[in-house]
Amino acid sequence: MCETCGCGEHLHEERTVTLKQDILQENNQQAEQIRAYLRSKRIYCLNLMSSPGSGKTTLLEETIRRLTVGTIREQSQLPIYVIEGDQHTDNDTHRIAALHVPVLQINTGTGCHLEAKHTMQAIKQLNPEEDAILFIENVGNLVCPSLFDLGETRKVLIVSTTEGEDKPLKYPYIFQEADVCIINKIDLLPYLQIDMQALRSNALKVNPHLRLFEVSALKGTGMDIWCSWLIEELAKCK
Amino acid sequence: MCETCGCGEHLHEERTVTLKQDILQENNQQAEQIRAYLRSKRIYCLNLMSSPGSGKTTLLEETIRRLTVGTIREQSQLPIYVIEGDQHTDNDTHRIAALHVPVLQINTGTGCHLEAKHTMQAIKQLNPEEDAILFIENVGNLVCPSLFDLGETRKVLIVSTTEGEDKPLKYPYIFQEADVCIINKIDLLPYLQIDMQALRSNALKVNPHLRLFEVSALKGTGMDIWCSWLIEELAKCK
Repeated sequence: MCETCGCGEHLHEERTVTLKQDILQENNQQAEQIRAYLRSKRIYCLNLMSSPGSGKTTLLEETIRRLTVGTIREQSQLPIYVIEGDQHTDNDTHRIAALHVPVLQINTGTGCHLEAKHTMQAIKQLNPEEDAILFIENVGNLVCPSLFDLGETRKVLIVSTTEGEDKPLKYPYIFQEADVCIINKIDLLPYLQIDMQALRSNALKVNPHLRLFEVSALKGTGMDIWCSWLIEELAKCK
Repeated sequence: MCETCGCGEHLHEERTVTLKQDILQENNQQAEQIRAYLRSKRIYCLNLMSSPGSGKTTLLEETIRRLTVGTIREQSQLPIYVIEGDQHTDNDTHRIAALHVPVLQINTGTGCHLEAKHTMQAIKQLNPEEDAILFIENVGNLVCPSLFDLGETRKVLIVSTTEGEDKPLKYPYIFQEADVCIINKIDLLPYLQIDMQALRSNALKVNPHLRLFEVSALKGTGMDIWCSWLIEELAKCK
């Protein structure tokens, strides 16, 4: 029983804190193992995080298209692999598989985020070649994924213009953890009341190191700028 | 140590399952106490859940406006109270307080949902009159709030047209738990590729008992239908 007052609530809180520390510690250890493995194979890994419906899968599809066809392919020519995280369904896996890219679905059931053990399991199954790029599409959630390092090279946060300018302030932890923030659905700006300058400044107030991009994955706007940056990053990491 | 194989992973999983069961059991007990209390005071309580940025606060503002002014007020004339849940900031509390409604902010920090203990704490502080309506705006998250009963009369799920038609299939638990699903931002339909018929049928496939509404909280479309239904529900519960 809880040494403080014997009540169930404190007991649970104490156990929760201990268990959370243990789980995060174990997750971080696994993530570091994955990071070392990926580095040794020169595999660049992106962890894509966002709210449900902000356009992660469309962004991923359009990024893959640009990396595998057209002018950008000349610069990259990398093997691409994808890990898809969702509570249920393998809808997104079908969308990615249609692009002829090896993809593995992980369904978390009631789980609200991916963990390093999922990356580890997926890498074993996908068995990626050296000098590859590995995208991980996390479960749609602006809260819990921020706590779990997946062993990625970079964390990419996607926010949609439809979500409003206040999200960096209301959900600061995931903005603090991210390396890149992609503002998606800019094609809808004429129909929304969002203050884009406030969104940018709120994001940078929470995390001054964030690299910001503004795109419409659906219409293609800004996608070449994002993909060119990605190619530069890949080159730096070799 | 884990009796199965002594590994840390199984140990954590076993402890997680036990702790989760304990936490949910304690939460459910508190929620039932709250429900009995609210029923004894004839207080109707709605738990509003959604992804970040789907328009919960705007919907709540416009609902409160309709319940406190104009023709609908003649039918309701209820005291209104609001509990605001967010990771950080009291932005939404300021928006609600501007409507001259008693409101209490609960910041969850890294927490991803409200729990019954938060409702209990807020009720003690708000001390609502009898025959009132209490709105709880949960943390923006389409996953975790589904597990936690807050003692509410009804669970209301808000989804935005910008989130796509597949969300009921990908996040089924929260759709299964909800009594009402409000599809918000229908003013954006001309600019989106969403299949509304698929969204409706996906929602009803996951939960055939869902009561569906389609609104634009921003433009007011459909809001009178939603509020009239709410007034009828309030009358039934007396």
